[in-house]
Amino acid sequence: MTIGTRWARFRTKDGNLGFGTYTEAGILVHDGDLFGTAWPTGVHLPSGEFILQSPCTPSKILALWNNFHELCAKLGKQPRSHPQFLIKPATCVIGPGEAIKRPQGYAGKVVFEGELGIVIGAGAAIFGFTCVNDVTAIGIISENVEFEQWCRAKGFDSFGCIGPVIATALDLSALRVITRLNGDVRQDYSIADMVISPEEVVRRISGDMTLLPGDVIACGTSVGAGSMRDGSIVEVSIDGIGVLQNTFG
Amino acid sequence: MTIGTRWARFRTKDGNLGFGTYTEAGILVHDGDLFGTAWPTGVHLPSGEFILQSPCTPSKILALWNNFHELCAKLGKQPRSHPQFLIKPATCVIGPGEAIKRPQGYAGKVVFEGELGIVIGAGAAIFGFTCVNDVTAIGIISENVEFEQWCRAKGFDSFGCIGPVIATALDLSALRVITRLNGDVRQDYSIADMVISPEEVVRRISGDMTLLPGDVIACGTSVGAGSMRDGSIVEVSIDGIGVLQNTFG
Repeated sequence: MTIGTRWARFRTKDGNLGFGTYTEAGILVHDGDLFGTAWPTGVHLPSGEFILQSPCTPSKILALWNNFHELCAKLGKQPRSHPQFLIKPATCVIGPGEAIKRPQGYAGKVVFEGELGIVIGAGAAIFGFTCVNDVTAIGIISENVEFEQWCRAKGFDSFGCIGPVIATALDLSALRVITRLNGDVRQDYSIADMVISPEEVVRRISGDMTLLPGDVIACGTSVGAGSMRDGSIVEVSIDGIGVLQNTFG
Repeated sequence: MTIGTRWARFRTKDGNLGFGTYTEAGILVHDGDLFGTAWPTGVHLPSGEFILQSPCTPSKILALWNNFHELCAKLGKQPRSHPQFLIKPATCVIGPGEAIKRPQGYAGKVVFEGELGIVIGAGAAIFGFTCVNDVTAIGIISENVEFEQWCRAKGFDSFGCIGPVIATALDLSALRVITRLNGDVRQDYSIADMVISPEEVVRRISGDMTLLPGDVIACGTSVGAGSMRDGSIVEVSIDGIGVLQNTFG
């Protein structure tokens, strides 16, 4: 497996925000623009001295509908040549360790969907990849038979979990998305099973709208997505990126 | 009719961006934050010395589906108590006078939808109102029978026309949304026919997600929306706000 750089955003105990390159030992703090020119400041923050934040602050998340052959087959859906997507707002984004909140007044099922996230860089190129938990108030989507409420069901504050880092130069061909619910593996699917590859997704969506640095495309989930209960711990992991852990409620 | 302040954003001939209060005579330039504290600089820009821009730069546009009784009745749709919405991205926003562009590779119908726009201020309160042309590549919505592509059909760059100004303290009760296509009136409907009032729309959507200052809620269109041809001029007007004019193609 090729490993490039892993970029993280952090908050220090003093409340300062910053970004840098991440290893298990800590963060090499950088200055500048993550998607432009960035340079090391010489400061190393050891593990324990910071809290990871969402690794970028997207202006929008584009969430793909049914982009894995196995899930399409299971649901009896036709694979499509153009990405089918909805928009999750910037306000739904949370980072690793932050709490997923149940929408007020909604008592229905809230599901986790572990996904690969594409992070857009300068010039609408792929900057790197992250893990996504595309949280969904599943009971809302089809509540109105005349209009499927995808944006509402997936747009609540805290429903866009991304992180823990952005990995560049990642060879996806052998990688899997693994989602654990309270430690039990609930999703374990191959990224190679994608209907439309990340490169083609970005190329096609760039024809639909301007993609900005830091925007995230959640590549859609596959089989095994399921319901969370109060206190559930969900971990989405992809080798080379790491583990995105969030608690529900 | 009560008329409050009309706020505009502008670009000068030198390319400088600014904002201020608007009258037919020109703009009284302001400094500070439109949605926080703003104060006059003493500079008055006479008409002809500036070009109006979109009056705000929303982080997102929430576009309501079927929120007028007359259109619901015509389409045989059930009025709903909770706003049904999709999200148009920030990147689709254009201001008065800017060109609406046909999506590349799409030869189908592109329709205008004249609408009232709610502009959100501090604390998710209603700051004021503007005109919206909620442009839609209508052939895309139902292209895939398994997934209605609302966000794609309405999210192309230039498909979110807003302006010409934001009017505060506007009494909507007697106002109408009038849309002209090449000078002919194609839509002329009463704002009082809304299923869910602006105040209730904002209250309910605030429970779904955080609304930020400058965000726009397009209140949905009513009867008479229709197709544009290359060169079509669309004007959406509401008394007290003014005329939002855009050309297609």
